[in-house]
Amino acid sequence: MILDEVIADIKPIDADIMRQAAERQDQLTKPPGSLGRLEELSIRLAGIFVTERPSVRRKTVIVAAGDHGVTAQNVTGYPQEVTSQMVLNFLAGGAAINVIAQTTGVDLVIVDAGVGSPLPPHPNLRVIGKGRPTRDISRWPAMSRNNAETTVMAGVQLAIEAAESGAHVLGTGDMGIGNTTPSSAITSAITGQPLRETTGRGTGRTDDELNRKIAVVQRALAVNNPDPTDGLDVLAKVGGYEIGVLAGVMLGGAFARRPVVLDGFISGAAALIAHTLCPTASDYMIAAHQSAESGHRVVLSHLGLRPLLDLDMRLGEGTGAALAMPIIEAAAACLSDMATFEEASVSNRPPEPDSPCDS
Amino acid sequence: MILDEVIADIKPIDADIMRQAAERQDQLTKPPGSLGRLEELSIRLAGIFVTERPSVRRKTVIVAAGDHGVTAQNVTGYPQEVTSQMVLNFLAGGAAINVIAQTTGVDLVIVDAGVGSPLPPHPNLRVIGKGRPTRDISRWPAMSRNNAETTVMAGVQLAIEAAESGAHVLGTGDMGIGNTTPSSAITSAITGQPLRETTGRGTGRTDDELNRKIAVVQRALAVNNPDPTDGLDVLAKVGGYEIGVLAGVMLGGAFARRPVVLDGFISGAAALIAHTLCPTASDYMIAAHQSAESGHRVVLSHLGLRPLLDLDMRLGEGTGAALAMPIIEAAAACLSDMATFEEASVSNRPPEPDSPCDS
Repeated sequence: MILDEVIADIKPIDADIMRQAAERQDQLTKPPGSLGRLEELSIRLAGIFVTERPSVRRKTVIVAAGDHGVTAQNVTGYPQEVTSQMVLNFLAGGAAINVIAQTTGVDLVIVDAGVGSPLPPHPNLRVIGKGRPTRDISRWPAMSRNNAETTVMAGVQLAIEAAESGAHVLGTGDMGIGNTTPSSAITSAITGQPLRETTGRGTGRTDDELNRKIAVVQRALAVNNPDPTDGLDVLAKVGGYEIGVLAGVMLGGAFARRPVVLDGFISGAAALIAHTLCPTASDYMIAAHQSAESGHRVVLSHLGLRPLLDLDMRLGEGTGAALAMPIIEAAAACLSDMATFEEASVSNRPPEPDSPCDS
Repeated sequence: MILDEVIADIKPIDADIMRQAAERQDQLTKPPGSLGRLEELSIRLAGIFVTERPSVRRKTVIVAAGDHGVTAQNVTGYPQEVTSQMVLNFLAGGAAINVIAQTTGVDLVIVDAGVGSPLPPHPNLRVIGKGRPTRDISRWPAMSRNNAETTVMAGVQLAIEAAESGAHVLGTGDMGIGNTTPSSAITSAITGQPLRETTGRGTGRTDDELNRKIAVVQRALAVNNPDPTDGLDVLAKVGGYEIGVLAGVMLGGAFARRPVVLDGFISGAAALIAHTLCPTASDYMIAAHQSAESGHRVVLSHLGLRPLLDLDMRLGEGTGAALAMPIIEAAAACLSDMATFEEASVSNRPPEPDSPCDS
């Protein structure tokens, strides 16, 4: 399968079933609308799964890690080897994403998409781009167009595999020291918003660090001049390998008709790439949370997504995605498993006086 | 045990342990602060449980139901018998709270605090005030002061029992046709905010219904003149039996050193009563969500609580509390179970250049 075929096979979510699901919501034993955004969400899940009674019990977050040549420009608070150290931490179960996934019943898939420092083989590590960090985007393109496409397709395959293994819902997570820098470049390239809006501190701390980072992103865009209408061009020129894998997971999720829960800013940059390659894919995207990293707001506004959570988190790793999944599971379960007024013999009130008559 | 003894035994949460927990947070493998409100929450949980490594795996929501004489004033969209019908729905597992509790691993305790219509005995129904709705508060006090105190103490006992049965975290939920009316009366009485701010539509629909409801609440306050500094007086004059039980659950939770997760507006009114009886009890309260019912904002602002979720929900039943519990569980687990930089051999960065030196 090639990427164009995947994209051609991504279908819109089912509007007829969504109408039926909305009617069912109004028959459930609660005042209409009183479950708020859980109701909207459940109706979208119905459209994704093409059933009035969706279920998202089995949950998987795919965490992709990659390194970034642009760390040579001193844009981050941590040394590059932290990427590989954190991958080992994921594999040992000690990171925030492990702990949150454990409490929320989420399975993890850890992916070496292009970690620069050596990682020993591990049965739970999926290796896509061993030892291959991006080039410094302030001087060169991050990767070849061919590598960009291969990376996205690797993500597509991971999503399809997870769906075939039984995951009802997929989530995205990232690890990559320096990866807020390419994410800001992608966000400005695709949305056209100024760097001041799309560039946050990441793990940096001072105003000087932020200003240096903005200058680096500006240089990356000037040197590479990515085409904002061509997702692969943007990814190849100012992206990253983990970002490409995550964009692929989003396309693969939509292809396999699974909701894809976006984590924070890095996942958001990947979503912009996926959306540029296939706008219909965003029907399948659910924004887990509003990241405290400032560019994330620009991403969600461009994609028309409203986050479920707003907890000042900015860690990445899929922590926001894993934390939002119980809400998504509960939304589906309410639509599917609640009793109707008739089933429970609960008195309903008459329909709205000013609502149109159903014949 | 009498209520005054319970209140006297409620201790502030532990500030020393909270400082230690905050230090531990900064040693965990993530940039300091990057888990946002999960970090704050985990530190508060440490203070509640008096341990640097709290755990809130076992979760219980106590759902109290009661009827309201004020429904005679036509303040609600559903007939009064829906309260008992919904209690039967809770016991049969068909309501939103059942479905959400099922997906989030929350145990439920269903309480008949004063349901007007007959309910058959059921092994899972705790009966406190069988067949005893409140009087119409627009004409008389809701209940005697003695009944108010007995009701609160029943809630205290329920919370202590749940804690003794192993619940690490308690939540509150309500069912009671008409109960936004006493909740608005309580909220205006205790906070002093105008009825336009504290009174929402509840399950009513039109502006006329809302205006009628405001007039009814106004009459309730004028007829009863509750003392805003005396929680039992407010409960007895303009409250409700389920509200009294929930206020007791909050006091009992604080007494037993358990976090108590508040659901929406009705739980909020109960929290105002509990806070008036014992301000320290609010150290143990966690606001699950921002209800779409307008008076809830006034409640949370008075209590100084910031909600975890904002999903336009306004159902009650403890649905918001149950939905927030996985977040609270995850917050505690991150503090307790994540690896430190040292344990995971992950490179930490040097401390902030401008931070005070630790000796």
